[in-house]
Amino acid sequence: MDHNIPDPSVRRLSAYLRQLERLAGEGTRHVSSRQLAGYIKAGDAQVRRDLALFGQFGRRGVGYEVDDLINVLRTILGTRQRQWPVVVVGAGEICHALLTYRGFRQRGFDVVAAFDIDPKKIGRTIGGVDVLPMEDCAPVIQRLEVRLAILAVPADAADETARRLCECGIEGILNFATTGLEVPEGVFVSEADITSHLEQLSFRLTSHRP
Amino acid sequence: MDHNIPDPSVRRLSAYLRQLERLAGEGTRHVSSRQLAGYIKAGDAQVRRDLALFGQFGRRGVGYEVDDLINVLRTILGTRQRQWPVVVVGAGEICHALLTYRGFRQRGFDVVAAFDIDPKKIGRTIGGVDVLPMEDCAPVIQRLEVRLAILAVPADAADETARRLCECGIEGILNFATTGLEVPEGVFVSEADITSHLEQLSFRLTSHRP
Repeated sequence: MDHNIPDPSVRRLSAYLRQLERLAGEGTRHVSSRQLAGYIKAGDAQVRRDLALFGQFGRRGVGYEVDDLINVLRTILGTRQRQWPVVVVGAGEICHALLTYRGFRQRGFDVVAAFDIDPKKIGRTIGGVDVLPMEDCAPVIQRLEVRLAILAVPADAADETARRLCECGIEGILNFATTGLEVPEGVFVSEADITSHLEQLSFRLTSHRP
Repeated sequence: MDHNIPDPSVRRLSAYLRQLERLAGEGTRHVSSRQLAGYIKAGDAQVRRDLALFGQFGRRGVGYEVDDLINVLRTILGTRQRQWPVVVVGAGEICHALLTYRGFRQRGFDVVAAFDIDPKKIGRTIGGVDVLPMEDCAPVIQRLEVRLAILAVPADAADETARRLCECGIEGILNFATTGLEVPEGVFVSEADITSHLEQLSFRLTSHRP
């Protein structure tokens, strides 16, 4: 599989998968590239191009089998073959929201532990997940072979915490800190900063009314 | 201003702004396109192309003035001219995390109210923001001229709630629901689904080790 696939294509794969899961839940068995395109406001040629990066799926005139395409996309995204254990660092409000959300597990992600430096937070259990001291981070990550971490610490602690996680073997960081991260080569960062999401929208509303 | 700017470019503008704000906080006054590129792991030609969409900034051999470029980017993203009032719909854990986070206001966004249908949540105050009944949504949005909403309701209520928000005049929705939204033409959606962020990472870790 080519690792030069651009981020926007990967993001669309997730968006297709969300729509297909929704269609499957409604009992729909077939979908056309035009329908899939409509849900995410792209062209149907875009959908076909995105999927063609990975093989030949769907049949002319019939479209895609919903269940098949769900399996294909999960295989591509890496969530069909395995559950990914995930740690959360920083046991504040975002962590709380994440741990009480039950949807991760059915989508292939399993939060196995949370870490914090605050003695008042350590020892608590949130949504069935224990909050452990930061010192336990390395042994837990190594024992459970964790490769993904969610970073939910204040901005001024983000770089230092990310460095520590990478030293423990973390290879992918979902960053909720409101600052860009500097990470070693080979470590991937996905930015979840909410302000940036809002800026996407304010840009669209501003640029449409110059 | 051109409204055909693609989403990935706009996302990079936000990323540049985050880095510049960080540099400004550290007292840095000048930055090159190469330095800016390094922070977000893009090429320096990419940075220059993204900025050239909006005008001529920076000087050859000197680079960009950090404070100037912050102002330019905020102007482009629409957060320099004004504060954007924002409503949150769904007063659960995500709402809680959003309302206790104080960083929005300094970045141009001001959460003015939260709404829920649950009588146990209505009447509470979270982070200084009142949780109001859904019936108050339309009058509040109209009175305060709110154009942006954060949708944090369960997946099965997302479409209906989004439809209602658009009827009230909302033009941009930040969607935390784990489902794609169908919205009228002219309404913008930014997807904040956390599972999709994790899938970006699992894809990268999977495709690098086929």
